[in-house]
Amino acid sequence: MSRIAVLGTGNVGQTIAGKLADVGHEVKTGTRSDGTYAEAAAFGEIVVNATAGAASLEALEAAGSENLAGKTLWDIANPLDFSQGMPPTLTVSNDDSLGEQIQRAHPDANVVKALNTITAALMVEPALLGEETNLFICGNEKSAKAEVIQILETFGWLSGDIVDVGDITAARGTEAYLLLWIRLMGVLDTPTFNIKIVRAGD
Amino acid sequence: MSRIAVLGTGNVGQTIAGKLADVGHEVKTGTRSDGTYAEAAAFGEIVVNATAGAASLEALEAAGSENLAGKTLWDIANPLDFSQGMPPTLTVSNDDSLGEQIQRAHPDANVVKALNTITAALMVEPALLGEETNLFICGNEKSAKAEVIQILETFGWLSGDIVDVGDITAARGTEAYLLLWIRLMGVLDTPTFNIKIVRAGD
Repeated sequence: MSRIAVLGTGNVGQTIAGKLADVGHEVKTGTRSDGTYAEAAAFGEIVVNATAGAASLEALEAAGSENLAGKTLWDIANPLDFSQGMPPTLTVSNDDSLGEQIQRAHPDANVVKALNTITAALMVEPALLGEETNLFICGNEKSAKAEVIQILETFGWLSGDIVDVGDITAARGTEAYLLLWIRLMGVLDTPTFNIKIVRAGD
Repeated sequence: MSRIAVLGTGNVGQTIAGKLADVGHEVKTGTRSDGTYAEAAAFGEIVVNATAGAASLEALEAAGSENLAGKTLWDIANPLDFSQGMPPTLTVSNDDSLGEQIQRAHPDANVVKALNTITAALMVEPALLGEETNLFICGNEKSAKAEVIQILETFGWLSGDIVDVGDITAARGTEAYLLLWIRLMGVLDTPTFNIKIVRAGD
């Protein structure tokens, strides 16, 4: 079991922090209002970014590169801009991503992007869907990805359903998928869905 | 059965034109090299844009707004820019899309975006996957979407698996998904895959 920092106490942060504690980790949350980003990050052997995407770079700057160095920095945020109403746009996309921005800002952290493609409730209870679906994971460090996958397994995800899409530049794909996800949420009238990859010969 | 123009004779154009002919339509293809975009578009009651995304606006300008007016303009293209190598970027995305650019350039056409999220072979033979998967369709005119769905059914798609994601602005989502699709193609080592939406209670 590990000491894990969860930055952000919105829906995602609360859900992840609660589940991490449930499965036995020692969890400390950090928030902007309490000024506890750095304290939490210093505590964590693993740091989870569950802040809103638009606030993530600032939150992680407050957390401090020195408190993230050498650690797995699990990024769940999406760079969504709701300032113009619905549907939101992405503050960064196409040839860059929030995952990469975070990696560049904290070069000694091992950024792993995972769980950003589903709603909070599903993140910690994939069985809600009654069928196996897929998650995407990316990041530059294999060992950091393995660490996140191990935690995801304790959440109920099967490692065979977690697709490693490559280095952190693959976040361009998993973040841009949000533009489709948002449309689907609208027409399906629920955020509680995910996708399953089907390939020939499966 | 209809008279259908297929603009573009690359892999997608050839595949679609062949299948449309197989299921009984009268098909005329248009190419840039032969200068036959306008001729084909004038012939078609339905016009399919199967040109490369980077060339679509020019091809449709050559086809002529007058030859597209009042018709269903079925857009299969993706705005992919391969000029900087792999992975490609999108020439338009986030708050705009190729589908919308085409609709703006030809306001009297009824643009329907569909089939742009899968590889050519699957477009006309969904059973290759051995399992039901989902397609996305969008456009401003319900009747034009219905026309495309009817053709898709003759290709083997089940109407229940075709998700209407809304008006043509939803192309922002289905085109941006390509950024994920390309990564998946790389790690799955095949373009012959698709996604299935799974929601709670299904």
